[in-house]
Amino acid sequence: MPRYRLTIEYDGTPFVGWQVQPDGVSVQGALETAVQKLTGETAGIRGAGRTDAGVHGRGQVAHFDLAREWPADKIRDGLNFYLKPLPIVVLESAAAPPDFDARFSATARHYLYRILARRSPPALERNRVWWMPRTLDVDAMREAASVLVGRHDFTTFRAVQCQAKSPVRTLDRLDVKIVDGEIHIHASARSFLHNQVRSMVGSLKLVGERKWSETDLRTALEARDRTACGPVAPAAGLYLMAVDYS
Amino acid sequence: MPRYRLTIEYDGTPFVGWQVQPDGVSVQGALETAVQKLTGETAGIRGAGRTDAGVHGRGQVAHFDLAREWPADKIRDGLNFYLKPLPIVVLESAAAPPDFDARFSATARHYLYRILARRSPPALERNRVWWMPRTLDVDAMREAASVLVGRHDFTTFRAVQCQAKSPVRTLDRLDVKIVDGEIHIHASARSFLHNQVRSMVGSLKLVGERKWSETDLRTALEARDRTACGPVAPAAGLYLMAVDYS
Repeated sequence: MPRYRLTIEYDGTPFVGWQVQPDGVSVQGALETAVQKLTGETAGIRGAGRTDAGVHGRGQVAHFDLAREWPADKIRDGLNFYLKPLPIVVLESAAAPPDFDARFSATARHYLYRILARRSPPALERNRVWWMPRTLDVDAMREAASVLVGRHDFTTFRAVQCQAKSPVRTLDRLDVKIVDGEIHIHASARSFLHNQVRSMVGSLKLVGERKWSETDLRTALEARDRTACGPVAPAAGLYLMAVDYS
Repeated sequence: MPRYRLTIEYDGTPFVGWQVQPDGVSVQGALETAVQKLTGETAGIRGAGRTDAGVHGRGQVAHFDLAREWPADKIRDGLNFYLKPLPIVVLESAAAPPDFDARFSATARHYLYRILARRSPPALERNRVWWMPRTLDVDAMREAASVLVGRHDFTTFRAVQCQAKSPVRTLDRLDVKIVDGEIHIHASARSFLHNQVRSMVGSLKLVGERKWSETDLRTALEARDRTACGPVAPAAGLYLMAVDYS
């Protein structure tokens, strides 16, 4: 069966998340419905990252199989036609080798977390950023972030319901910088635990507020204890930006 | 009477425009209602730029008078409290001298127009950009834009209903550049005619499509004839970014 690879952008606000759920519209479900309308075939779609409700996609990657061969650009344009009422678009579509797996073939995932730290709430960036009505110490956040980079047991920064077998991950990048008045946190790794980025960002925010020192962050990491984590950052500020394949 | 100056951000999508209209909610009207709720006073609010329906504000400036003195930050936070359900926020509030006029004291207005030129429609930037499903020749647009810079009779690029006495304006800046995969057009002038930015962008888009040459754009300008203008660009891509005062 021919396999197809999609690159997808979506506004996570109205969805229950990437994954099909019994209660509400998921990004995966909306894509499967669009594939069914376009091709008449029932195909399961597998994504590289199972983003939670409210998390956005800029470069989510997914794959699915069809019985029939389709030109890749017909897939892209046809799915976009059927997706039109929803804020989901297919950016790219391509034929993929039969052993390509959007989830397991991925060699890196890149996330962005956006914080708007200013007195006034966002008007144009509602549901797009984490707003906090106070300034943060970005230099302290940047320095502390380096504590988390590398290979660690991230149990502290992992949702209780995380299904991964091991809590050990290698975090390749955790950069904190100011872009156009917002704080942008870029996180890259081969794979992440459930809620890992939002958990790390929530704890870095405590450092930015000077409630935690760099040592407190290190202590939290080394505790390997979920209860040592700061409050998890909200979904609306998180973007799955890109997924790499070798 | 003490005078106050506001800097305002808004998502223009749900509004009939800046100016109070009989049919629907305007940004000006929403601000006047918030002032009334906060202070109990009925104040007319005057803005620097009367943005049309769907046009966004990043740095709109307005002024109004109150009988009573208020701390500037109480004005900002109080208005934001009463504006909360609407995508309008006050970024800054300050006491202003009695002769300050948001509209007539302005020495420059800065607009940004965003074009998303790619095959797939926007998911995250709906109502925020002008989407077109083809690439544009940005170099040709950049070169042609220089034709419009300077002091000209802009009758061609002026809405029929424009109320300005003279069609002559001095355009100080019209830059075209690529930013994060979008085409950004920055326009600056002491003042603009009604629909001038959107009219110029609509004609520049014809240059980008290679339907018009730089000479065609010059001919359109020199015609001083509204019917010589290209189709006016949609409101959703336009942002009033900032207003300068001496």
